[in-house]
Amino acid sequence: MIIVLRPEATKAHADELLARIESLGLRPLYMPGTERVVLGAIGDERVLERLHLESHPMVETVTHILAPYKLVSREMHPHDTIVEVGPVAIGGARFAVIAGPCSVESAEQMRKSADAVKRGGAAALRGGAYKPRTSPYSFQGLGREGLQILREVADATGLPAVTEVVEVADVELVERYADAFQCGARNMQNFRLLKALGQSRKPVVLKRGMAARVEDLLLAAEYVLAEGNPNVILCERGIQTFETATRNTLDLNAIPLIKQKSHLPVIVDPSHGTGLRELVPAMAKASAAAGADGLLLEVHHAPDQALSDGRQSLYPDQFETLMRELEPFVRAAGKTLS
Amino acid sequence: MIIVLRPEATKAHADELLARIESLGLRPLYMPGTERVVLGAIGDERVLERLHLESHPMVETVTHILAPYKLVSREMHPHDTIVEVGPVAIGGARFAVIAGPCSVESAEQMRKSADAVKRGGAAALRGGAYKPRTSPYSFQGLGREGLQILREVADATGLPAVTEVVEVADVELVERYADAFQCGARNMQNFRLLKALGQSRKPVVLKRGMAARVEDLLLAAEYVLAEGNPNVILCERGIQTFETATRNTLDLNAIPLIKQKSHLPVIVDPSHGTGLRELVPAMAKASAAAGADGLLLEVHHAPDQALSDGRQSLYPDQFETLMRELEPFVRAAGKTLS
Amino acid sequence: MIIVLRPEATKAHADELLARIESLGLRPLYMPGTERVVLGAIGDERVLERLHLESHPMVETVTHILAPYKLVSREMHPHDTIVEVGPVAIGGARFAVIAGPCSVESAEQMRKSADAVKRGGAAALRGGAYKPRTSPYSFQGLGREGLQILREVADATGLPAVTEVVEVADVELVERYADAFQCGARNMQNFRLLKALGQSRKPVVLKRGMAARVEDLLLAAEYVLAEGNPNVILCERGIQTFETATRNTLDLNAIPLIKQKSHLPVIVDPSHGTGLRELVPAMAKASAAAGADGLLLEVHHAPDQALSDGRQSLYPDQFETLMRELEPFVRAAGKTLS
Amino acid sequence: MIIVLRPEATKAHADELLARIESLGLRPLYMPGTERVVLGAIGDERVLERLHLESHPMVETVTHILAPYKLVSREMHPHDTIVEVGPVAIGGARFAVIAGPCSVESAEQMRKSADAVKRGGAAALRGGAYKPRTSPYSFQGLGREGLQILREVADATGLPAVTEVVEVADVELVERYADAFQCGARNMQNFRLLKALGQSRKPVVLKRGMAARVEDLLLAAEYVLAEGNPNVILCERGIQTFETATRNTLDLNAIPLIKQKSHLPVIVDPSHGTGLRELVPAMAKASAAAGADGLLLEVHHAPDQALSDGRQSLYPDQFETLMRELEPFVRAAGKTLS
Repeated sequence: MIIVLRPEATKAHADELLARIESLGLRPLYMPGTERVVLGAIGDERVLERLHLESHPMVETVTHILAPYKLVSREMHPHDTIVEVGPVAIGGARFAVIAGPCSVESAEQMRKSADAVKRGGAAALRGGAYKPRTSPYSFQGLGREGLQILREVADATGLPAVTEVVEVADVELVERYADAFQCGARNMQNFRLLKALGQSRKPVVLKRGMAARVEDLLLAAEYVLAEGNPNVILCERGIQTFETATRNTLDLNAIPLIKQKSHLPVIVDPSHGTGLRELVPAMAKASAAAGADGLLLEVHHAPDQALSDGRQSLYPDQFETLMRELEPFVRAAGKTLS
Repeated sequence: MIIVLRPEATKAHADELLARIESLGLRPLYMPGTERVVLGAIGDERVLERLHLESHPMVETVTHILAPYKLVSREMHPHDTIVEVGPVAIGGARFAVIAGPCSVESAEQMRKSADAVKRGGAAALRGGAYKPRTSPYSFQGLGREGLQILREVADATGLPAVTEVVEVADVELVERYADAFQCGARNMQNFRLLKALGQSRKPVVLKRGMAARVEDLLLAAEYVLAEGNPNVILCERGIQTFETATRNTLDLNAIPLIKQKSHLPVIVDPSHGTGLRELVPAMAKASAAAGADGLLLEVHHAPDQALSDGRQSLYPDQFETLMRELEPFVRAAGKTLS
Repeated sequence: MIIVLRPEATKAHADELLARIESLGLRPLYMPGTERVVLGAIGDERVLERLHLESHPMVETVTHILAPYKLVSREMHPHDTIVEVGPVAIGGARFAVIAGPCSVESAEQMRKSADAVKRGGAAALRGGAYKPRTSPYSFQGLGREGLQILREVADATGLPAVTEVVEVADVELVERYADAFQCGARNMQNFRLLKALGQSRKPVVLKRGMAARVEDLLLAAEYVLAEGNPNVILCERGIQTFETATRNTLDLNAIPLIKQKSHLPVIVDPSHGTGLRELVPAMAKASAAAGADGLLLEVHHAPDQALSDGRQSLYPDQFETLMRELEPFVRAAGKTLS
Repeated sequence: MIIVLRPEATKAHADELLARIESLGLRPLYMPGTERVVLGAIGDERVLERLHLESHPMVETVTHILAPYKLVSREMHPHDTIVEVGPVAIGGARFAVIAGPCSVESAEQMRKSADAVKRGGAAALRGGAYKPRTSPYSFQGLGREGLQILREVADATGLPAVTEVVEVADVELVERYADAFQCGARNMQNFRLLKALGQSRKPVVLKRGMAARVEDLLLAAEYVLAEGNPNVILCERGIQTFETATRNTLDLNAIPLIKQKSHLPVIVDPSHGTGLRELVPAMAKASAAAGADGLLLEVHHAPDQALSDGRQSLYPDQFETLMRELEPFVRAAGKTLS
């Protein structure tokens, strides 16, 4: 921690602060400059937090020099983590495509959509039973009935099932039906939900919030790991920017950045990341090339009938074409598609 | 709803879409242009949603022409709504300042801070018992004990108490101790929590999310009103932008914009909106001038000891000075400070 | 300057860097920590730039501890600067309103608009002869003829004239006709233009770029001052964010922030800052309350006929009403309106 | 153009507007709805601009239904445009890598850097003689001397040269020395410069501004084409967002989006797009996979000595490795690297 003092700070102010730093067992440093004094504090960050130096009237800025996350950091754990979603290993040599409709709408819709993604070569099936929607007048999901449909269809096709959980009270129920939880962008900083998911051992696909820095995403994952669940898959799904031609701005910079900072697997959702099905294939390929471990994709048997996100869902034949075209990019990135 | 078709759409495509529009009891419109065809659909929006026209392969864009929120809109309810927080009316002639520390840390800290805000002329007391924090290693709040301290101190000073609720399971408990709920920026789209708050009749201070458009905020409020609770106070607290000199960018444009679109009262949190106590007084005055109905302010008896947000908390004497300086601005805006 | 080394950096790397720092006449500091080494370099920043330490393979981050701007900083010049635009002093006790149409369209339009702003109590007249427009098919301004019209109308009404310059080659011509240059948001980092304006002694109204941090704005002003022209008036006009309900997000945080960092006067353009004339009055008042030294306002004698920015231009009677309502806010802020 | 009227608009208002639409030779449409009236105007957009309907007091919103750019649009020109930079065709089957240092610093530095990029397989050489820098105290480029060095080194290595032009007055000089102009992000809306470049026939690499939507970029290109120069290469180089871990957020969504909207070639600058050399290889591959026609890359013979952008410049051996690793991605995208 680097503490820059205000110009008017005296030697006595510096001494008082250095004494506070030392009193916590940290190593204090005194660096007087030509215009102002800089102090340092070296040691365990959790202790440093208690100092609240940024609130001191003589302190101008405080800079942390170490990553604020621990368990998710690559410094702590140099090798890539592999997370098992049912029989599918995510984070290793396989590039895993999790595909399916945005929402579970009916048994028939799920069967048709699941057949399509299975035929195309998906590794896992997605489908939401609880839908966080901006408007209270939009379709909100089938709830428990949706979970049952998802499970039956997943079993019938032999694909593991990933589905969203939006509330602590639902964690137990969702865990019973799903092979992996999805924690959505709007809940990335729902810290109670993160803690509840940390008490499970089922994998968590944690989506980056629309206004979250990569560091915020890693700290959100730290909540889950700190509770004891090491099975987190990070997911880049686009951030909120001024560009209005696309629903979100897919931040693929985040892929190599996360790979550098963390050992956790990371996948990309180009459906939400673009909001336009015409852009999904290009961005799926770009994700593989950027080093992602897989994709989360919206595929619907009839997107123009979909109750949510139809505009960004692929038609079955578009999905099959994409999977075929994706293969050489995945291979060039040193992974296999199936 | 205005539907622009792709250039390749034929008359048959247009007819099919017009038939679907009409089949739902809406008024279809056909507007052929020089380069492409435009369709219209006039009628109740909730029915329009079921068409999912944006997913149709021959549809290029769909534009809604009416506000998607209903109960919160000024069109539905032309007069300003007044919300009562204990004995304090928010949204009428009084400019209400809700002040106190970020977190309840101890009985002594709350007593000292509450005395300070009471002395300065605050209308209500704030203090968080449940703290959503970016890092799992930061102070997370005192929970139930914090609620008890807040209630005792509020009763002792005669100020109503506002406190954050972060989880559906806590709503009942928080309701027992607080005069108004605060729903934080990170939970603005926690729709389950919004629905649970909609089943209470206690007021809800709903803070705008960091990546939320004003329309998203109004739709979030619509969730609460749609469940039957009309007592929502909107709160602008800064949005996420590229500017790094301040913690957030306080969007005061939102104040006159919300006043135009909605009948709900709106307050401003310049503490989070700037992140720097030196900027708080100027932005508090600007909020009053922009037409806000009050402020949410962080004041701590000793900010350099605070367990959270010390950098943006006012010292007691700064708060007193601010309240004195604020008065002519409030008066010029046609309201009274106490 | 604070230099954090990578974990793999050795003592030899640190010594090499310390020697480079010392070789430039700076004071080197060595601060070994538990996980990595931190170095410091204290002294003149312009020398520090030559080190390019951020490019060294063993350097993780470099943090500047002092403001990168010099002549514009309040540390260098503690008292407020007053800039004279013709007979009008900006930055002192007077709150100066510069008003007029976006573009000079004709002699008649300028006369009518100038009469309106004069009647309302404006201190200076604005009007653009060179218009930077997003589309090549939009009205681009009248050029030299526009400058002549502006000058004649300004002389007739007795108001000084402010007008935009978009190109080095036009500086001399614009200087002949205008009492102050306006450098627009899109040209805030047109460094050649800034240098050319720095060689004039006429005042420059420098508008913040849509993607510019406050620090970038101050560095842009530094270009002008470094060439010898001390007469810069900074102008906040809204930044680019994800909010689409308003044309820009007016960042009033910037007002107290700039006042803290710099001695230069700062005004606000709520017309561009909102893009909607209904929001302009509220934001004009908020600007005065936040501590601004004046406003740049679009007023047109007939906004629905305007060739540019009609949607955000005030009608003459709206301007008169605003000036009347603004007065108590200006007074509360310790200034006078005329 | 779709015009939604305010609720209070009467039939007479609608009739007045319809008459104005018709008076310009456009086709007016009248669409009364349950809550408000919607009007349409079908015809040539350049005429529509003159209506300024968005400024009318009874008009709530105006929506354009057709792209505002013409010459750059794919609707106007369905086939991909190929631009020749010296002997290198950009936009066709070849994936062209333009590489070199940020700035021309000396003849020796350019020779060493050019040798490195030639050896690695670059198609063209870059290097800036005029540098737009945020601070007036940073290195500003060698000017004419830099252009001479660039030309000599380009001729010696047999690579065409691309270099930035920042000012109308320099266009002629730069044209004499360069095979293609670069128009930087800060000048993307320097419309005078765009027009001057439009009067040349040399290619223009037009970089997207930090706050520019894709539509703004296409309109900027329209300025160049409208003056008669069809040789524009668009360049995505990252946009300004709230993420601070990277210098910019590279928006690869823009690649397939531009390909859909425009016939112009598009390349990517992952050096500025990330700001960190460790992330450049991954994003270079992702750019190829997303469908880009090439790259603009910073490579320096000794980045830790660079006078600008050293942190994001590749070392020569990193560049060679990248080119080798890039090849299968380029091939999978249906192009060749050399």
